[in-house]
Amino acid sequence: MTGYYRDSLEMHRLYKGKMETISKVPLENAHDLSLAYSPGVADPCLEIANNPSLVYDYTIKGNLVAVITDGTAVLGLGDIGPQAALPVMEGKAMLLKRYAGIDSFPICLGTKDVDEIVQTVKIISQTFGGINLEDISAPRCFEIEKRLREECDIPVFHDDQHGTAIVVGSGLLNALKVVGKEINTVKIVVNGAGAAGIAITKLLRIIGFENIIICDSKGIIYKGRPNAMNPIKHEIAELTNSLHLTGSLQDAMAGADVFIGVSAANILTKELIDCMNSDPIVFALANPNPEIAPELAKEFGVRIIATGRSDYPNQVNNVLAFPGIFRGALDVRATEINESMKLAATYAIASLIDDADLTDEYIIPDPFDHRITKVVAQAVSEAAISSGISILRNLAVQ
Amino acid sequence: MTGYYRDSLEMHRLYKGKMETISKVPLENAHDLSLAYSPGVADPCLEIANNPSLVYDYTIKGNLVAVITDGTAVLGLGDIGPQAALPVMEGKAMLLKRYAGIDSFPICLGTKDVDEIVQTVKIISQTFGGINLEDISAPRCFEIEKRLREECDIPVFHDDQHGTAIVVGSGLLNALKVVGKEINTVKIVVNGAGAAGIAITKLLRIIGFENIIICDSKGIIYKGRPNAMNPIKHEIAELTNSLHLTGSLQDAMAGADVFIGVSAANILTKELIDCMNSDPIVFALANPNPEIAPELAKEFGVRIIATGRSDYPNQVNNVLAFPGIFRGALDVRATEINESMKLAATYAIASLIDDADLTDEYIIPDPFDHRITKVVAQAVSEAAISSGISILRNLAVQ
Repeated sequence: MTGYYRDSLEMHRLYKGKMETISKVPLENAHDLSLAYSPGVADPCLEIANNPSLVYDYTIKGNLVAVITDGTAVLGLGDIGPQAALPVMEGKAMLLKRYAGIDSFPICLGTKDVDEIVQTVKIISQTFGGINLEDISAPRCFEIEKRLREECDIPVFHDDQHGTAIVVGSGLLNALKVVGKEINTVKIVVNGAGAAGIAITKLLRIIGFENIIICDSKGIIYKGRPNAMNPIKHEIAELTNSLHLTGSLQDAMAGADVFIGVSAANILTKELIDCMNSDPIVFALANPNPEIAPELAKEFGVRIIATGRSDYPNQVNNVLAFPGIFRGALDVRATEINESMKLAATYAIASLIDDADLTDEYIIPDPFDHRITKVVAQAVSEAAISSGISILRNLAVQ
Repeated sequence: MTGYYRDSLEMHRLYKGKMETISKVPLENAHDLSLAYSPGVADPCLEIANNPSLVYDYTIKGNLVAVITDGTAVLGLGDIGPQAALPVMEGKAMLLKRYAGIDSFPICLGTKDVDEIVQTVKIISQTFGGINLEDISAPRCFEIEKRLREECDIPVFHDDQHGTAIVVGSGLLNALKVVGKEINTVKIVVNGAGAAGIAITKLLRIIGFENIIICDSKGIIYKGRPNAMNPIKHEIAELTNSLHLTGSLQDAMAGADVFIGVSAANILTKELIDCMNSDPIVFALANPNPEIAPELAKEFGVRIIATGRSDYPNQVNNVLAFPGIFRGALDVRATEINESMKLAATYAIASLIDDADLTDEYIIPDPFDHRITKVVAQAVSEAAISSGISILRNLAVQ
């Protein structure tokens, strides 16, 4: 139960959900129907049948993203099932419209089987210009996204991984400017090896961070650890912890400049903070209750703290990233959302705050900053074109 | 190419498709987002997780119908593929909104495999309150609908079958009043054993018509016919042609009171009409060009003619049926659309024209008759309740 219990239930019940579908074209008389439906609709159908790329001209596909879940990792609530996940998916769909003008449908899947999920999403992807995967539990989410990226010819993006990683990455770039530290020298501890923890670690590696330790509930992840591993942890062990540290979270924290928690409420203690280097930077992203309360973090000497909460400064909110990323990808008809586009989004978000305006309390832009979607979309479109995966650019230069 | 070629393409290109998704709730500030999305959205999620039926109170599910196709039998265009079918599916979705206030998404499937279609639709049905199957080729459509009706707990309705059958049934009931003939004595020839022909025949049987002959391109279908049969034709052979007629369409037409064509343009000749009984009734439903032009039919002695065209009287238009049928089913949360509900819709549509107003040219209501959806929905809801398949009624009487 959140602090919004009664108001939220009342609002959802009053409106019976949050979204609706409406017509963009008039449907008032026989002439209207003869254009929008039979017989006139046969003409765009035949045109598309003869030239498949015209589906982007004559239908909603090019501006349409599916928000897809199996309900296994919904918010911080866990595996509550596909129907209980629907309020989140509707909300996400409406954020895409609100922030980026993108039409979006929620699709909740009645299966947890990875093969069935991949098959189902692939089969329904015909209708859509992009796929946003949402609230699918780790490590299943990694395989599902990987296989769908291979099998679909439209962008597939698991926001819990990459949206979070991008906003954390941009916040961290700005935080380092504030404390005057360098990418290639700071030590980072990521606590949590689920969807967000893995994606954050991978993106930070691509940005150029070299010294990253990732921990899970069993402590430091290292190459050859015998227990509680999975394919993605084996992969991440190769990319991190080059000194082969072993031991607990506390062992990892010795001399750390940055702690990024995507784990559980209140696990960041004074003892752990005391192990850190000067000017500690903390991203305490557990939701709704962070790894440490911001007031307490400050009291224990943390210099910069970011959380997922809207009632504190430096909110890591995915809405800074995913609407602009999909807008940018759809605008140039990118066939995927690749690492170069994610990197471009990361720098674009960071750049929204001028160096002169950066402070301990302002390393991440406000979600209501009206420039955000446009700036991110522009950067993402350009990165897609540079990568050569933009169909529209390809068409334009032919 | 239809007569609307340029206008239709221009309209579809201008709007980039015909539908959009919008928010019913405000999303302007942090408070709005905290109710519609994180953290407040967790409350309806948890309520639904604890009591699954609340998904109908807190989400769009209860007013949401998927329009699903595999693109194998689109309009009269045949197997043009799922993406080329999207303009039709968008149009259909918007008719559901325009006529019945039902929100609707098009879903085009990238497979023609019956097992994959059934599996996919079943998996995505979680999000929806009903499934409208559209433009799926026969005989595959029969198995797909049958299996989905068994496996889904929401209404599944193949409109090309039942919507057409219901409007034809209602028109025929009124036509018989005009010519003064009786259900249990007239002889009916149905030409075409695809989705519409089979469904029309089955519904007419349920209404009480006893003497029906169904023909396909090989002539009369009869029990034990050796060639060009399939499971549904074997089934329909049991329900029709009790005199075991064999031969051609011309053989079938001898003494027929009613011809119902769901076949091909211009196949109804003067010779065939000359075989018919007095006051011939003709439903010439091939689209866009009927089995006989209405002017010619009149010239050859047909008393009453109905077509699928909006530019002639007596238009058989599915929009008279499917919006009210789904409205009625959703309103009482029916678990299926059963034969009793289809029958109720048939009589409801027929009843919209008072006996005194019936003429040769007015046996079927106008698609813009503003009473239509309400009257059909009411009849369908009542039939669902009487059948004991209405969840809301069940809840109400507990």
